[in-house]
Amino acid sequence: QQLFRVGEDWYFLFILGVLMATISFVMDLLVVRLYEAHRWLYQEVGDILVLKYLSWTMYPMALAAFSTGFSQSITPYSGGEGTPKIWIPPPPGSGIPELKTILTGVVLEDYLAIQNFGAKVVGLTCTLASGSTVFLGKVGPFVHLSAMAAAYLGKMRTSVTREYENKFKQNEMLVAAQAVGVATVFGAPISGVLFSIEVMASHFAVRDYWRGFFAATCGAFVFRLLAVFNSEQDTIAAVFKSDLKIDFPFDLLETFFFAILGAVCGLVGCAYLFCQRWLLAAVKENRLTAKLLATDKPVYTVLVVLLLASITFPPGLGQLMASRLTMKEYLTSLFDNRTWGVLVPNASSVAKPPGVDPQGLWQEWYHPSATIFGTLAFFLLMKFWMLILATTLPLPAGYFMPIFIYGATIGRLLGETVALLFPRGLRSEGDPHHIIPGGYALAGAAAFSGSVTHAISTALLVCEATGHLGHVLPVVLAVLVANAITQKHQPSFYDGTIIVKK
Amino acid sequence: QQLFRVGEDWYFLFILGVLMATISFVMDLLVVRLYEAHRWLYQEVGDILVLKYLSWTMYPMALAAFSTGFSQSITPYSGGEGTPKIWIPPPPGSGIPELKTILTGVVLEDYLAIQNFGAKVVGLTCTLASGSTVFLGKVGPFVHLSAMAAAYLGKMRTSVTREYENKFKQNEMLVAAQAVGVATVFGAPISGVLFSIEVMASHFAVRDYWRGFFAATCGAFVFRLLAVFNSEQDTIAAVFKSDLKIDFPFDLLETFFFAILGAVCGLVGCAYLFCQRWLLAAVKENRLTAKLLATDKPVYTVLVVLLLASITFPPGLGQLMASRLTMKEYLTSLFDNRTWGVLVPNASSVAKPPGVDPQGLWQEWYHPSATIFGTLAFFLLMKFWMLILATTLPLPAGYFMPIFIYGATIGRLLGETVALLFPRGLRSEGDPHHIIPGGYALAGAAAFSGSVTHAISTALLVCEATGHLGHVLPVVLAVLVANAITQKHQPSFYDGTIIVKK
Repeated sequence: QQLFRVGEDWYFLFILGVLMATISFVMDLLVVRLYEAHRWLYQEVGDILVLKYLSWTMYPMALAAFSTGFSQSITPYSGGEGTPKIWIPPPPGSGIPELKTILTGVVLEDYLAIQNFGAKVVGLTCTLASGSTVFLGKVGPFVHLSAMAAAYLGKMRTSVTREYENKFKQNEMLVAAQAVGVATVFGAPISGVLFSIEVMASHFAVRDYWRGFFAATCGAFVFRLLAVFNSEQDTIAAVFKSDLKIDFPFDLLETFFFAILGAVCGLVGCAYLFCQRWLLAAVKENRLTAKLLATDKPVYTVLVVLLLASITFPPGLGQLMASRLTMKEYLTSLFDNRTWGVLVPNASSVAKPPGVDPQGLWQEWYHPSATIFGTLAFFLLMKFWMLILATTLPLPAGYFMPIFIYGATIGRLLGETVALLFPRGLRSEGDPHHIIPGGYALAGAAAFSGSVTHAISTALLVCEATGHLGHVLPVVLAVLVANAITQKHQPSFYDGTIIVKK
Repeated sequence: QQLFRVGEDWYFLFILGVLMATISFVMDLLVVRLYEAHRWLYQEVGDILVLKYLSWTMYPMALAAFSTGFSQSITPYSGGEGTPKIWIPPPPGSGIPELKTILTGVVLEDYLAIQNFGAKVVGLTCTLASGSTVFLGKVGPFVHLSAMAAAYLGKMRTSVTREYENKFKQNEMLVAAQAVGVATVFGAPISGVLFSIEVMASHFAVRDYWRGFFAATCGAFVFRLLAVFNSEQDTIAAVFKSDLKIDFPFDLLETFFFAILGAVCGLVGCAYLFCQRWLLAAVKENRLTAKLLATDKPVYTVLVVLLLASITFPPGLGQLMASRLTMKEYLTSLFDNRTWGVLVPNASSVAKPPGVDPQGLWQEWYHPSATIFGTLAFFLLMKFWMLILATTLPLPAGYFMPIFIYGATIGRLLGETVALLFPRGLRSEGDPHHIIPGGYALAGAAAFSGSVTHAISTALLVCEATGHLGHVLPVVLAVLVANAITQKHQPSFYDGTIIVKK
């Protein structure tokens, strides 16, 4: 009897972890299938440019419009039946700002209603399936989904045990749910807990941390396990496994470049946060867009996605932005352990393959007239405003993953530059220790995403997601530098969204 | 002006990190020298058994007695000059229980007095130099030293800025100091912060966590940097670098064995905690030992160390316990990526080298008639009570490292057994995936130390200290299982000490 009562919490956390991991995995599978269908369509349509263009743009447009409409039509704006509601939440978006508000004590009744669960899952799947054209991620909505599931399971429990519903216990479970949400996306239990704590709370109890840890481990474990059962992988391994060599990860003098990378990421992070807040407010205030967003959200979505898809059209500007890659392929290619600058001379002789070569993802980044530096810089330039524009879309989507990729690109560009400047490494005597641009990509991803979200645990997240710990010290350094700059000048991404939405 | 004021805290944390890292590094260097002197003496003395025995036992006895006497004579039991003191702290020991008491709000005036700093440093160096005979570590006193330094720096600051000394700020700095203490011993910034939080506090502010992170990173960075400057290492790398292969760290079915390992560690942890508390109380109550401890601490130390050294005498029982290894070599050998059971047949033909072979540390664990299983089991059996006995010694010493090594031995023994039972791995078809006992040693170290201290972050500590992230999921699993068992039945090591000392 006693054991059962004590264990109850743990059963509950276990179920939550397993459930969310399964949903995450199935969603990933579906998204890959949908994306492959798009690729197949795009290639089968032949060489007629108009058809190619239509197949490229229509598919994400349809998916995004469906995602917007679906999540819109189901979620009722149930305007208060008796219960006093402080604020009716806008259902689309990331979900993290709203959760943060809930944890401070504000009651957002409908926000955790289980009715929205299905709509959010379907909507998110569609968003993700439109791929790197829309350039949105999965973390935020997944944290929201996880919180919904936790709230529902909590209600079920109280109805079974007939106990009074405890507010503290609810909050404890919400914190654990957030950790599960992050952990089941990246397969990273430890940093999942830390990230959710950093982003959500300003104080917390070590006892909550324990719960979060347990649930996140169950989640991450099952998530990786399913990949093994599905024969994707031989055994449990990191999600974005990198093969960076660990016997000599970096030279001491490179610390300097990592600090510069951190500073660059911090400055770009400030600019990004400023522009993002500005655009979010501008879209609300502009008469045309405000009207569209109030009445015809799908129309707004279609227009924006059409613009984004036109720019990323591969025969057009897209070839300068490696736009044929998926979000996951972006990351895998950027964390590549080879130095692209060295590979280029050999590659120019080989004809570019018609499809994406899984072994040579980096070739997508190569363009004969622009070189890899040109494409990386162009990608950064264009995606800066495209990403900000995408965050105004009224559909369920996460903004962490795009930020992560953006940061990795900054790091890769700087790393390739350093490798070009010092082809034999920084040491003048002895064996040459070549510079590994992949390590800079790791540090850049952690530093930029950390600076935008005001979190330090992204340093650990990068390590856990890639299974590579060799660069942990320079990565932490870059994250600290970037955070020091951004925390001084801008509110975090989530706080900024709360400010604008208020 | 404003920048300077805001930055002040950061300068302060930076100085703390660098200072402690330097002390830690210099102490390590000194300890290695002192230990080498002992080894040299032991080998130079020739083959006369009596001389060998004397040189083996006298050296640690002298060091431990000096350590006891030195830290005793300097630290004044200053019995209250006006200020009300709740409890006069016993200066020797780990220091973590006392810090935990301070953080709950109890005033232990003398405990953070800078006068004790030098005594503690000298005492700790002597303790460590007596090596694996006494089998004590460095973490606890280092956390204490770091807290002393932080308190002193804080006083210096207030005397310069002429501000009122802020109690909250003091506590913030103490939390950061603990993180620095752990981080500069293991070179592990992230888990240093987490471990100190878990062990010390029940609640904490995310803002403290930031400070801890910054200071710990500075500390760990400088600590690793000094090793590079001293030409010990080529570049910044993990302290206990392991070469476990990461492309196939473990088979899925092995998860079961890792869970068993966790359960074993949890049970042994319970037994250890119970016996340790019992002995600590028994030593206080027994008339003879109580009298010795009250008046003639060095005598007590000498007697205990004589007993411990006699048992670990290499030509005697010591050869069954690999007693010629240092603490660091113990860990390095246990985390070895090779399977000892496979190496043994080749080794039996080779004659045992007279000294310790740095490349073949595992050979110390091999004994012709006892096999490696015999020596590992014997080591566990003997060190169980020897370690508990050593914790009663009245000298500055840490108890984390021995627990860590003990856990690694449990893991290695289980791993070697599994590897013996399944020589071709657990999978019947396809390529054989050999079992890596080193992975079990990692999990065992994390699980046992985690269960004794009631901390989960030891899982991350193991990964950071070895620079190996491939086993993170099974390690976390083992830690959770072990913790679930111990937290239910026993108070943590530090709480237990507080209970006994109260």
